[in-house]
Amino acid sequence: VASKPKIGQRGVLVIIGGHEDKSGAMPVLREVVERSPGGPIIVATLASQVADELWPVYRNAFRKLGVRDVHHLDIERRSDAADRTKLRHIERARAVFLTGGDQLRLTSKLGGTSLAEAIRRVHERGGVIAGTSAGASVMSETMLVAGAAGDSVHVRADVRMAPGLGFVRDLVIDQHFAQRGRIGRLLAVVAQNPRLLGVGIDENTAIVLHADRRFQVIGKNAVYVVDGRNITHSNVYEDPSDAALSVHGLRLHLLAQGDEFDLNMGLPRRLP
Amino acid sequence: VASKPKIGQRGVLVIIGGHEDKSGAMPVLREVVERSPGGPIIVATLASQVADELWPVYRNAFRKLGVRDVHHLDIERRSDAADRTKLRHIERARAVFLTGGDQLRLTSKLGGTSLAEAIRRVHERGGVIAGTSAGASVMSETMLVAGAAGDSVHVRADVRMAPGLGFVRDLVIDQHFAQRGRIGRLLAVVAQNPRLLGVGIDENTAIVLHADRRFQVIGKNAVYVVDGRNITHSNVYEDPSDAALSVHGLRLHLLAQGDEFDLNMGLPRRLP
Repeated sequence: VASKPKIGQRGVLVIIGGHEDKSGAMPVLREVVERSPGGPIIVATLASQVADELWPVYRNAFRKLGVRDVHHLDIERRSDAADRTKLRHIERARAVFLTGGDQLRLTSKLGGTSLAEAIRRVHERGGVIAGTSAGASVMSETMLVAGAAGDSVHVRADVRMAPGLGFVRDLVIDQHFAQRGRIGRLLAVVAQNPRLLGVGIDENTAIVLHADRRFQVIGKNAVYVVDGRNITHSNVYEDPSDAALSVHGLRLHLLAQGDEFDLNMGLPRRLP
Repeated sequence: VASKPKIGQRGVLVIIGGHEDKSGAMPVLREVVERSPGGPIIVATLASQVADELWPVYRNAFRKLGVRDVHHLDIERRSDAADRTKLRHIERARAVFLTGGDQLRLTSKLGGTSLAEAIRRVHERGGVIAGTSAGASVMSETMLVAGAAGDSVHVRADVRMAPGLGFVRDLVIDQHFAQRGRIGRLLAVVAQNPRLLGVGIDENTAIVLHADRRFQVIGKNAVYVVDGRNITHSNVYEDPSDAALSVHGLRLHLLAQGDEFDLNMGLPRRLP
């Protein structure tokens, strides 16, 4: 699967819906490894409150997959993001893996720092940025932070968004998608601005997004793509904020392993 | 809201997503009352295992809404469905309300009996058939009985269907929709046969379906309409049954109070 990136060619983003297998067949983590052969892989636990528990789990998983060169990145506070040693580690990385936790913990510590810029450059020079759960949500320009799940969605009250790290534009990610009943809040975001394509990723499932803006689905479950470009009506700004959301004319694609989606065309296809 | 049906004109179906308000403003039950002024309303608890608890709750709700003429219909076993007194009760009813419970308990006792035929005739001669939860699912020709909810959907294993009472054709109902995370299983049904329009109804929400095959949405939450007519690809019959479901090119409408859907055209519109 791994093809050596040309010099100067941007690498891939591996955007994971959370709860990826870390001890069995590990289809998702294996993809990260195959796209950064031998490492180094940096496991960044900045989003997590239990970094010391998460780090050994990922170290062991990546070692089991044959990578010896795995390192831990964490910072206590924003000022630590200028640390020279940490920056040097990132500069030689072939992959950075952003764990789950809290999106805002990650972006408030990392956003706008030299460390964030160094991570972005890993991608720019052909490396992998992978992220799971909160680490998946932060990939986009605007990210979902909170919102009603497993319940009906109303016009304005239910969705909280914030600026993400901006590794990919024109889409918004949601994770743990089917498992936490999040279709409603993703529809609400797309209705607020149909410029954004909504991408809801199930657990133990990921998209592998390439420089040419195509992505493939990998893993056990599904990816929901919500396309609002042809919306004919919505009540986002007309109705009181406790009214139920109404959106006519959405396009929905349910994608699984073997499917590819072209973000330029806005169309899915089954790989031959 | 209530308009007197012309003689020979078919009445309405009020199809409710479960958990409708039975003590407060009661927007959904009020609709049933306004469309069958003064009654008699028959509360049919055939689907339920706790009929004796359900019946007084509905009797009190309908009385609160000003209907004195409310009756209870239940049968222990299929042979009771020929009972003359019960049939006479149905013959003079203006509305029959099917409570929640288990779809198969209802259809296995009622399907193909004179009692079922008498209920169908209430609708034929301009009356109301209302149903909530299991009582909503049974309205269609083919009904959803069980299926994975709040989780990813796979190609074949996750959905069980059975023949319904057939009061409305060309659609399939799901209920408690957002609350139980049921979008995946409804997509699976529509992918199996895109002739059927998928209609997922949230709790405390209903559709009011008229003889001209238009329905309006009433109540607090939303109705999801899944239109598979333009599906360009699905893996329903190709892939192993534990593969994640893939369906490209669905159309999705999220409807709320104030929206109407025309089943003939397959299109929603906002009421002026």
